[in-house]
Amino acid sequence: MTEPSGVHALVRRTHEERVLRVLREHGALTRGEISRHVGLSRTTLSEITATLLRRGSIVALDDDGVRSGRGRPAEKLALDPAAGQLIGIDFGRRRVRVVVSNASHDIVASVVAQYPDESGWEERIRIALDLIETTGEDSDIHFDAVQGVGIGFPGPFSPRMPRTASQPMAAARQAAIDLLTRSFGDRFDAPVIVDNNTRFAALAEAIWDSADPVRNLLYVRLSEGVGGGLVVGGQLVAGGFGFAGEFGHITVSPHSVPCRCGKRGCLETVASIPAIFARCADDGVPVETLDELRRAAVASDPVVMAVLREAGEAVGRVLGSAAMGVNPSEIVIGGEIAGISDVLVQQAAETIRYELLPVEERLPAIRAAQLGDEGGAIGAIAALFRTSPLLAGYFDAEPDRSQIPMRRSNTMSSTEREAQRWSQ
Amino acid sequence: MTEPSGVHALVRRTHEERVLRVLREHGALTRGEISRHVGLSRTTLSEITATLLRRGSIVALDDDGVRSGRGRPAEKLALDPAAGQLIGIDFGRRRVRVVVSNASHDIVASVVAQYPDESGWEERIRIALDLIETTGEDSDIHFDAVQGVGIGFPGPFSPRMPRTASQPMAAARQAAIDLLTRSFGDRFDAPVIVDNNTRFAALAEAIWDSADPVRNLLYVRLSEGVGGGLVVGGQLVAGGFGFAGEFGHITVSPHSVPCRCGKRGCLETVASIPAIFARCADDGVPVETLDELRRAAVASDPVVMAVLREAGEAVGRVLGSAAMGVNPSEIVIGGEIAGISDVLVQQAAETIRYELLPVEERLPAIRAAQLGDEGGAIGAIAALFRTSPLLAGYFDAEPDRSQIPMRRSNTMSSTEREAQRWSQ
Repeated sequence: MTEPSGVHALVRRTHEERVLRVLREHGALTRGEISRHVGLSRTTLSEITATLLRRGSIVALDDDGVRSGRGRPAEKLALDPAAGQLIGIDFGRRRVRVVVSNASHDIVASVVAQYPDESGWEERIRIALDLIETTGEDSDIHFDAVQGVGIGFPGPFSPRMPRTASQPMAAARQAAIDLLTRSFGDRFDAPVIVDNNTRFAALAEAIWDSADPVRNLLYVRLSEGVGGGLVVGGQLVAGGFGFAGEFGHITVSPHSVPCRCGKRGCLETVASIPAIFARCADDGVPVETLDELRRAAVASDPVVMAVLREAGEAVGRVLGSAAMGVNPSEIVIGGEIAGISDVLVQQAAETIRYELLPVEERLPAIRAAQLGDEGGAIGAIAALFRTSPLLAGYFDAEPDRSQIPMRRSNTMSSTEREAQRWSQ
Repeated sequence: MTEPSGVHALVRRTHEERVLRVLREHGALTRGEISRHVGLSRTTLSEITATLLRRGSIVALDDDGVRSGRGRPAEKLALDPAAGQLIGIDFGRRRVRVVVSNASHDIVASVVAQYPDESGWEERIRIALDLIETTGEDSDIHFDAVQGVGIGFPGPFSPRMPRTASQPMAAARQAAIDLLTRSFGDRFDAPVIVDNNTRFAALAEAIWDSADPVRNLLYVRLSEGVGGGLVVGGQLVAGGFGFAGEFGHITVSPHSVPCRCGKRGCLETVASIPAIFARCADDGVPVETLDELRRAAVASDPVVMAVLREAGEAVGRVLGSAAMGVNPSEIVIGGEIAGISDVLVQQAAETIRYELLPVEERLPAIRAAQLGDEGGAIGAIAALFRTSPLLAGYFDAEPDRSQIPMRRSNTMSSTEREAQRWSQ
């Protein structure tokens, strides 16, 4: 069967999405019930359901609720919980994280694979595709009905960024983006979106496990580097040139140490993992791993506590100033460093509250991130909801209350849950 | 004739707006031509045009293009350039500015009236209504067909702000907003929107005289106080609680002079009119009026130049940091202080460029505001386009190229044009 194209295809896939949505909301239904809910004729509907059955997005159930042969009029149709519908992929410096959700917006798999720092994009892509393949086999998930692939890219990038191939870095970046889009688009025969991975993590914090997404949120991520993202008026902000959310390179102490960006005293020189290790070492407490840092913080080592407080104050000044600009209702601090000790987030919150004195009538909620290493990949899935005309929007002008929030599948094993946390 | 209400009224007014839009784009048309353009039946259309003629939004022209009697089939219909369609009002501390646009988005009047600093809201409203009345008589504009009134309010306020009547300041503010909405709504029988006046000025800079509005813009206004506004992704940003754009109260030197907001060393303590006067005086150059300041700047008085440069650097640090967050494609510095001397905007631009080193691939345009005292009132009109379902959106997902940009009417006298500039 040839797939229809253009407008016809769009109409057909919109119909498909409506059928999937009704099944999400109401559970198993007969064809007659679906027809009444979506307002499509029986003839049109039967084409749609045939396609969905063939692709494996939905299954037919007999009277006892178990899978049946197809085509009997009274049989019920239901979403296939084993159909991977959306794939979120976050390429970091040394690992790729893959999260898969089914049509109920349940996360049915979350897996990670390492690669060396210097790996090229072809190798990273091969590792990611292998990981998805293996996960499908191990978890009994099929990828015949994928609706979209969202890819978190490390470093500044946005779909809105102009193609400025004249500059070598920009050209290399664009080549990588093109390769990613082609490789995953071809493999899954589905639309692919690419955006900055930290920005996706911001979106994930705004929508995760809530029927009422936060419409104005600031997010900063303290990791090997420091990045961030903003949700403003329900929109993930890319900015005029795709560089929004670069909180790590806001100056906090103008005459201080040089930053890799060319300036001095950026937030990243105070609050990233290497910066915190260096500051502890400078003050006589050599710390070389996150484990060592955590142990020193648990033991309330005064030098480590002072370094974390100092980092928290810098984070608070940057986020407090940004909050005077965009007035978020929620501020989220994530990344490995935020999880080391409460002292950093507490100090940041105190500094933010001082900066917001002029608008203390209503202060934002300030909290540590709830999603760890998975944030970027989950955000990539959330962004798919928004950008594809085929998928329901999380951030319509009025939030769609019928929307099922993203959440973890109950069938995920506790080992998988554990694996989702930051590697300690 | 009773006016229809609810959905019926909305449909009718949407039809009206479509007819007005066709006349804006094509000039005078016969009823048959309009009918073909808007796709309405002759019967429906004739009801719509009768209403528009009765209200005075449009006029009937005979074969020579002059106004005719009504009803002959071949006569042409055209927009009435004398019909005030949208009214923008900006209430400042000591003056109210009123701008009126007709259905062609031409500004047909721009007037100002003073009131004492301590005037209550009833008095301010009375003065504004009198000013509108007089302007109508003087300029031969009628207000029978007003489609909307936009009101710029001084101090933090937004329609998204929660009604927190528990706090006395918030309660007084809400009472003023309610009175404004009621007074102008009753007088013009039209929808009223209220938002912060500086935020409106930001919107005005984004849309003014351009068919292609700037979708990501930062705006700061250096006046008696310092405020600002942001347009992000084509949306004027209110923030989670309505306080967005408060650049004046971002800390620039933590241990410096106290600010009226309760903090120390806010941008307002360095770059507002009173702050600049005080700093000049401290350094031995007593300056008490903007005129004196301008004369000293023109004479390159070294103290005044140093004070302006220092203010420009602080403005640049605040806007540069904010730009790392939201990545605007344009940054605009407005208010009386920005017009005193190029040195301030030049210094601010230099500092912003330093702060943006990490994303120097693509730098935003940095410029002085093009609209002076009228910015807030023009922005209020621009916001009406966006918020009323009756009016065309400037900031649809894809900009509507058929939209005529806002501009000044050619028929405005040069005296009026002159009066639009800052009072010197």
